[in-house]
Amino acid sequence: MYSYNYLFDFTKKIFVKMGCSDEHASMASKVFLAAELRGLASHGMIRIKDYFQLWEARRINTSPDIRIVHESPSTAVVDGDGAIGMIAATRAMEIAIEKAEKSGTGWVSVRGSNHYGIAGYYAMMALEHDMIGMSMTNANPLVAPTFSVSRLLGTNPIAVAIPADKQPPFVADFATTPIARGKLAVAEKNGEKTLLGYVQDKNGNPSDEPSILKEGGSMLTLGGDYAHGSHKGYCLSTIVDIFSAVLSGANFGPFVPPSVAYLPVLEEKVGEGTGHFFGAMRIDAFQPAAEFKRKMDEWITTFRNAESAPGNPAVKIPGDIEREKEEQISKEGISIIPNIARDLKEIAYKLQIDFEIK
Amino acid sequence: MYSYNYLFDFTKKIFVKMGCSDEHASMASKVFLAAELRGLASHGMIRIKDYFQLWEARRINTSPDIRIVHESPSTAVVDGDGAIGMIAATRAMEIAIEKAEKSGTGWVSVRGSNHYGIAGYYAMMALEHDMIGMSMTNANPLVAPTFSVSRLLGTNPIAVAIPADKQPPFVADFATTPIARGKLAVAEKNGEKTLLGYVQDKNGNPSDEPSILKEGGSMLTLGGDYAHGSHKGYCLSTIVDIFSAVLSGANFGPFVPPSVAYLPVLEEKVGEGTGHFFGAMRIDAFQPAAEFKRKMDEWITTFRNAESAPGNPAVKIPGDIEREKEEQISKEGISIIPNIARDLKEIAYKLQIDFEIK
Repeated sequence: MYSYNYLFDFTKKIFVKMGCSDEHASMASKVFLAAELRGLASHGMIRIKDYFQLWEARRINTSPDIRIVHESPSTAVVDGDGAIGMIAATRAMEIAIEKAEKSGTGWVSVRGSNHYGIAGYYAMMALEHDMIGMSMTNANPLVAPTFSVSRLLGTNPIAVAIPADKQPPFVADFATTPIARGKLAVAEKNGEKTLLGYVQDKNGNPSDEPSILKEGGSMLTLGGDYAHGSHKGYCLSTIVDIFSAVLSGANFGPFVPPSVAYLPVLEEKVGEGTGHFFGAMRIDAFQPAAEFKRKMDEWITTFRNAESAPGNPAVKIPGDIEREKEEQISKEGISIIPNIARDLKEIAYKLQIDFEIK
Repeated sequence: MYSYNYLFDFTKKIFVKMGCSDEHASMASKVFLAAELRGLASHGMIRIKDYFQLWEARRINTSPDIRIVHESPSTAVVDGDGAIGMIAATRAMEIAIEKAEKSGTGWVSVRGSNHYGIAGYYAMMALEHDMIGMSMTNANPLVAPTFSVSRLLGTNPIAVAIPADKQPPFVADFATTPIARGKLAVAEKNGEKTLLGYVQDKNGNPSDEPSILKEGGSMLTLGGDYAHGSHKGYCLSTIVDIFSAVLSGANFGPFVPPSVAYLPVLEEKVGEGTGHFFGAMRIDAFQPAAEFKRKMDEWITTFRNAESAPGNPAVKIPGDIEREKEEQISKEGISIIPNIARDLKEIAYKLQIDFEIK
């Protein structure tokens, strides 16, 4: 078990060694550690290696000039200048919040960024400002549209955070595929098969083999098959792609620069880097914030009191599971599976940082 | 077969007879007819009867004072004053577009409304202004959260319309359930069973019987079961509910006033009427509109050229199917199934309007 502080300091040192400023290294480390605390290890320390490899390949800029390139009272396009995704994304969400302070809402589309970690982190930044936060990103092209075997989309997650009063906030954070790619990666590392309905082989046949993605297979969109609404998952994923990349001038769909080693880096590009999209809506641009938050408590209580089907757990409010994990992991510490700890030790060695395998 | 003009004039006369102004009657009729043209008959003339019954029960206001009750430069809350949903919604989307003209984006949450027909109609209103349009609404409580048998949510659709240049616009319009409730209603009227994965009985057991909704059964959220991401469909549906109803002060979740006769009208209410949420984003608040639209053409072409899985149709762009239907139905005329034509004839008789069964 590791303490939050141990891993935070370690992660920060890695990014400083890569050339980040102290402020930027902290910004990025917070997002990696938030993933670990919230029980989303698939987006946590496991991804340090991806960034280390991108840095070794000179594919990220650790002293970026992140700037607004176009704006209106409620919108901006931000160029991340090749930054680590967590840094460009944090700055962009700050801009969305500033816009919302003045104009009621703020909407920021980002280009020239990289993989940004957990979508929910940025949406949650809005909460302390009594705002609703939104966050989405395009990602490694591994998902096929309905009817297709072409890998044109990422798992393109959407997060929405909504403040409440006495109840904890509502925090939805989900890939637009039945499961997140990171969970397939974990199943693969553990040598496990998956359920059917997540991936297909390169000819479109059903598969339960997470490694099929390395053999030209693809992930399915939320809904699974056409009869069960996979075209709706496809719609969601494409909306995320267009808002994140076409609006900003990032690479869309199949042109998103891969953050996994088994996808080739394309010669052709249609924009700059990976794209994200953020939103902030000031609650009191719609109604007094105190009134809204009381109403959210009422909404949450109504849903918490729903009747479970026999044999099923209690109905959850979006965010419950991650919050419960955070309470538990904050107390017990963060565990890192041996494979990942060894990867981190190797990176630490290369960068001349201490890292203890626990 | 009926001509567009015949049904438009007929529908308009019905709403004028109910007490609507000429302008409001036209506004509402356009949405009903748009559903028929786009091949979404489940949201077209079949729903006239629902509105007629609501009017007979004095549950709608045909001379509403639709007004902004709270606003900021980029937001508004609109009170529909019990209006026909199509009328409150059209007006609210107009306000979103006006806000976007000035502030880059416009976001309007609506209370005191009723069932608004096809979500896509309002999103598409943005297109001619070189804006991205968004539309969502809560609806009859018939959908159960993941793990639950309680009917707390509607099919809560989301629509997003995005302009392109030479390509037709991208128009996604989908319920956050595997299929729309209207399609279950059509299956039931035709005495057909459905696939598994759409509905469950009152104890949470799988069912293929569309009429199960009349016996305490419920619809499932997009994803179907937890292992395949039904909690993501649940997140989407709840986001729609909160944006539409908690932000505006409409009735949320289980308190949405039913537009179907088999659901009871509740004594308890937590707000005013049904809620909607609309958005408009001016393209040139992000980048020059001409440049964006050319990029959208490139995006659309990329996806159109995706490889189909063996035995599968060509990959569609959201909006293709409805647009193809519209071209066909505009030429061939609108067919209305005998059951519905008889219902319309009866309504016509009661209101002393002519209606021919064709």
